[in-house]
Amino acid sequence: MEINEELINIKNVIEEELYKLLSDKAGYQELIFESINYSLLDGGKRIRPILLLKSSELFKGNYDNSLPFALAVEMIHTYSLIHDDLPSMDNDDFRRGKPTTHKVYGEAIAILSGDGLLNLAFETMLDYSLRNSKTLDDYQRNMWAAYEIARYSGIFGMIGGQVVDLLSNEINMDINKLIYMYESKTSALIQASVVAGTILGGGDKEDIQRMRKFGLYLGLAYQIRDDILDEEKDKLVNKVTFLSFHDKSKAISVIDELSQKAFDILSYYEDRDVNFLKELVKLLTYRNY
Amino acid sequence: MEINEELINIKNVIEEELYKLLSDKAGYQELIFESINYSLLDGGKRIRPILLLKSSELFKGNYDNSLPFALAVEMIHTYSLIHDDLPSMDNDDFRRGKPTTHKVYGEAIAILSGDGLLNLAFETMLDYSLRNSKTLDDYQRNMWAAYEIARYSGIFGMIGGQVVDLLSNEINMDINKLIYMYESKTSALIQASVVAGTILGGGDKEDIQRMRKFGLYLGLAYQIRDDILDEEKDKLVNKVTFLSFHDKSKAISVIDELSQKAFDILSYYEDRDVNFLKELVKLLTYRNY
Repeated sequence: MEINEELINIKNVIEEELYKLLSDKAGYQELIFESINYSLLDGGKRIRPILLLKSSELFKGNYDNSLPFALAVEMIHTYSLIHDDLPSMDNDDFRRGKPTTHKVYGEAIAILSGDGLLNLAFETMLDYSLRNSKTLDDYQRNMWAAYEIARYSGIFGMIGGQVVDLLSNEINMDINKLIYMYESKTSALIQASVVAGTILGGGDKEDIQRMRKFGLYLGLAYQIRDDILDEEKDKLVNKVTFLSFHDKSKAISVIDELSQKAFDILSYYEDRDVNFLKELVKLLTYRNY
Repeated sequence: MEINEELINIKNVIEEELYKLLSDKAGYQELIFESINYSLLDGGKRIRPILLLKSSELFKGNYDNSLPFALAVEMIHTYSLIHDDLPSMDNDDFRRGKPTTHKVYGEAIAILSGDGLLNLAFETMLDYSLRNSKTLDDYQRNMWAAYEIARYSGIFGMIGGQVVDLLSNEINMDINKLIYMYESKTSALIQASVVAGTILGGGDKEDIQRMRKFGLYLGLAYQIRDDILDEEKDKLVNKVTFLSFHDKSKAISVIDELSQKAFDILSYYEDRDVNFLKELVKLLTYRNY
């Protein structure tokens, strides 16, 4: 299938670039390069950087200009996983079949690796923007894209969602809070990716507004699909999910609705090649793994 | 004394702005605003933001334009303290006489508060820059200042130094590694502050080069003074410091030398008001508290 081939190609580009970023680095602090590499190259799906690159392409942007930002969202995603897995957070020993970062390098190095990755995301975006912006429009778009990524990643976005997750239990959770948590924890970084891509690609305010919604719908549908896939596992640990409030058929109809809304947004751009993004939405919201 | 009065005034401005940033925030994640406020408003000396503002002023910049960056370096400094204090790092229960963040809010919220502060530093700089840059020069300087802060804070700067600190002990430490660690852990964020201030204030490449060195000398002198002040305490825990390699009179002569180099740089700008910065260097490198 065409999309699968392209998916693999983009994934390879992203992984090569991530690898280049930190390989061959030496110095007294070498261990943190090793630990960051271990976490970054762990076989993730690279959904966020792929969405960023393809959104940028939709508005006629090219990969080269968006790549540093794509790497940045993947670094932010990865740091959030490292910190999530820590003993005082989710206390996970394994991720994708491999021991988690703190299991291999210890808690202190894991915390610093997360900090280092979050910081490196901004270094990467700012360094690139500083060296490659020529016109006022370049500066503005690069700065704006970095800002959107920062905002969606922070205490009003992803980190905020993580706090809500941490403080929630069966007693104090309700469906509104759950949706807020999904919007922050899951949709936010997906929105950051498509919005940053749209800005970098040259989209106008209306395009950005549309893609902001596209990211929201896609993120929510993706998360509710997660709930369906993890139903048995979640029940064992009494985790509150969408299925604590609605049955599975309702969940599926909500996913259908959200995916449809995402498709509707893409149909604004039918004159361009939206096939990949459409297939990606299907792949993510109707996946069975 | 004049400098003391001005010092208190700037400190008040910085603390008011930090307070405004996160007060009155509500939402499901309210606890993280509370925890960040607790950590930010803990009676720190605010050395880094003060250095940033005064460096900017030296090159005719005004406070308003530099303030968001000054707040950002203080946020980065504060997050580094929160994470340093964690059980898996230095395991400190108290800081400046108050229980540390994880003692009050728990480890998970402390980790997320640190992440949130680092992230917020970039949000703050980018948000301001995006809204206030008009000319190419504005964009360039704002982006450059943010980049310098990012670089000095990361795995090639402050976080790198933290890793070295973590991995060092009496057996594997030598004087070169110690100096590298001091440059990264302590000087880096001081350099970030004076360099960002210089860029924002309108300094040229030579000014930036000079202030980069100024920050390096000041940071090292400050850290070696720390070693002298903490000598007894450090001995009790077998901490490797400058005094593990040299006696106290050598340490004092090195501080004198470094301070002199810092003064020499300021003497380039004798036609301007460098009195405050000179007094600040004295205050920091000859302090007895």
